[in-house]
Amino acid sequence: MKWISKNLNKIRTMNPLVQNITNFVVMHATANALLAVGASPVMAHAKSELEDMLKIADSLVVNIGTLDEAWIPSMEKAVKIAADFKKPVVLDPVGAGATRFRTETALNLLKIGKITVLKGNLGEISALLGRQGLTKGVESKEYNEKLALKLALDAALKFETTVGITGPIDYVSDGNNTFVLKNGSPILRKVTGTGCMVSAIIGAFLGVTNPIESTVSGITVFNVAAEKAYQEAPYPGSFLVKLYDQLYKIDEKTIEEVANVSKI
Amino acid sequence: MKWISKNLNKIRTMNPLVQNITNFVVMHATANALLAVGASPVMAHAKSELEDMLKIADSLVVNIGTLDEAWIPSMEKAVKIAADFKKPVVLDPVGAGATRFRTETALNLLKIGKITVLKGNLGEISALLGRQGLTKGVESKEYNEKLALKLALDAALKFETTVGITGPIDYVSDGNNTFVLKNGSPILRKVTGTGCMVSAIIGAFLGVTNPIESTVSGITVFNVAAEKAYQEAPYPGSFLVKLYDQLYKIDEKTIEEVANVSKI
Amino acid sequence: MKWISKNLNKIRTMNPLVQNITNFVVMHATANALLAVGASPVMAHAKSELEDMLKIADSLVVNIGTLDEAWIPSMEKAVKIAADFKKPVVLDPVGAGATRFRTETALNLLKIGKITVLKGNLGEISALLGRQGLTKGVESKEYNEKLALKLALDAALKFETTVGITGPIDYVSDGNNTFVLKNGSPILRKVTGTGCMVSAIIGAFLGVTNPIESTVSGITVFNVAAEKAYQEAPYPGSFLVKLYDQLYKIDEKTIEEVANVSKI
Repeated sequence: MKWISKNLNKIRTMNPLVQNITNFVVMHATANALLAVGASPVMAHAKSELEDMLKIADSLVVNIGTLDEAWIPSMEKAVKIAADFKKPVVLDPVGAGATRFRTETALNLLKIGKITVLKGNLGEISALLGRQGLTKGVESKEYNEKLALKLALDAALKFETTVGITGPIDYVSDGNNTFVLKNGSPILRKVTGTGCMVSAIIGAFLGVTNPIESTVSGITVFNVAAEKAYQEAPYPGSFLVKLYDQLYKIDEKTIEEVANVSKI
Repeated sequence: MKWISKNLNKIRTMNPLVQNITNFVVMHATANALLAVGASPVMAHAKSELEDMLKIADSLVVNIGTLDEAWIPSMEKAVKIAADFKKPVVLDPVGAGATRFRTETALNLLKIGKITVLKGNLGEISALLGRQGLTKGVESKEYNEKLALKLALDAALKFETTVGITGPIDYVSDGNNTFVLKNGSPILRKVTGTGCMVSAIIGAFLGVTNPIESTVSGITVFNVAAEKAYQEAPYPGSFLVKLYDQLYKIDEKTIEEVANVSKI
Repeated sequence: MKWISKNLNKIRTMNPLVQNITNFVVMHATANALLAVGASPVMAHAKSELEDMLKIADSLVVNIGTLDEAWIPSMEKAVKIAADFKKPVVLDPVGAGATRFRTETALNLLKIGKITVLKGNLGEISALLGRQGLTKGVESKEYNEKLALKLALDAALKFETTVGITGPIDYVSDGNNTFVLKNGSPILRKVTGTGCMVSAIIGAFLGVTNPIESTVSGITVFNVAAEKAYQEAPYPGSFLVKLYDQLYKIDEKTIEEVANVSKI
């Protein structure tokens, strides 16, 4: 998939501005991941500035990881403005399925906005499709390859969007095109916010290319960087440090050697 | 104390879900500390989801480090629901004594909820016992071994809870059993949120054992990991990275070699 | 400039308490930078505790990086109390120029409080002087040495304060004294919150010396530490870790060898 490197180079040339309305846990990590990969992050959620900021942003990432009643109107307003401005939007429904509040908020955002990419784990996406109880806090309780593939397709059709389901193997589908991605590292589960970083990086790609390429590229670039980082540092603290380094270093050669992406 | 390792192994087998209502400074650090040690963190404070989340959580950690008027109703509701659901609760009264607002909020949470473990530094615990002015921001202005021991016991009796007072030497008491813990590293004072990580890790232990063992085990596992990390990296940035690594690596052998815990 | 080291030594002896009302992205990083350099950080924004906390704080840092309507009354109240208590205040107008909301909020704080030091990038300071559109999110779109020098002076005169404009070359002016500072590293642009750390460190210096020395010392100590860190680790993840280490290690000898400060 030559286009993964090509898209990454575009990020580094164009430095897309990615606006994030995200959770408190990962704001620092997400901003650093975006900078390392070559994008410009901004974290802005105040209703009073959404219009001004979205006017200059290249994409919007909405993440409900520390959802608060007071932030929901901001998220709603932001996805509506993004739709008006035709700016692409990533939704990361962190913890959907763990509480009805998160499931319902995510479903509402899918309904009132124009979500370009929906990215979650199996528990979260299955909750949005009506099957609760597979989410333990913000983690997926189980993983099943066939189910992940099926639900990626189901969600793409139901929500008319591009869907990425991440896990030991990742599936991406827009209903017509489906990809299976086999990179990553088990240590990612021992570091908080790695899924949120992936969503933000997909947002960076949305600033330079289409939804399906963005989702495949974002997940793959992140997971390839994670594999390289794990080779250098197999413990979670050191790994996270090396992960930023690798997101900064990753290039065409590494992607071609390591990326495991196939269309199915 | 064989039970420290035994409890740690239980965390790694059972992966207790620890719900945190904590401060903005340490959310990322706390989540990573919990993951490294083997637990599952979730940060959730919205009133609308407290009941759903506490239903699946194994314990709750409430930390007032960046206390906000808007968050107090969430904290109050959470400790009440936790009492109803018989879920154990850690309270970390960060900055009590520095402002009346923090002292009073912490005292109110102690009154309306069923706090299983109260963990703070000497300035904070003495403020809750009525002696203000020993807290400089979020740090304790002074440390006095005899006073720490006395106040751990006093607070345990007054609040009918298990109390941990951390400092150069740590004291843990539930009124009947009192422990003195002599691990740790002075560099911990040069890294933000280390006390908050300890409280969160005590929360992880509460998902697998009783209050007194949880408090002793949480402080000791953290401090032993800190000693090992300091041996590898005696500067604050590198130290914090190694601290996560050590929380992940720490095992029975290291605990037995390094832990300095005695019952008094 | 012998006084840079002298001021740094004062921070390490006196451990000034720096109260921060800052953004969610950098709270952890800022607290750690302050601890590393020798100060005591506290993050406190609740209206109910501003008076108690400012009573014991040595300085206040206000940063609008994730500005929220609900936080503005806190910021306003804090700068008013600081003026009453004669505590020095740093204002970092993060993202001014990107949205009118940020520009207006920063201007209002300059009007109602007594801002001791105004520290921003060229896009932000030019926005406060009436020229919008040079800010891309939280970054400055362009940099021009002559303009930076001119605007530092203009802003110092207009707002009757000490101004620091950071960029590849930094300018500091209080209207009477103007300094040009030539330290730093391009990698700082690849790590989030480095500008915010500088503002916080200026706040630490304000606890021990006057505004012009504080601003020059804060920027220089940070940038010298950054140069040393970059020599050890030229990638963003590792660099940030080494930056904290260097802020902790930096001493008179290093400052004298590396600092490039001249009065113009």
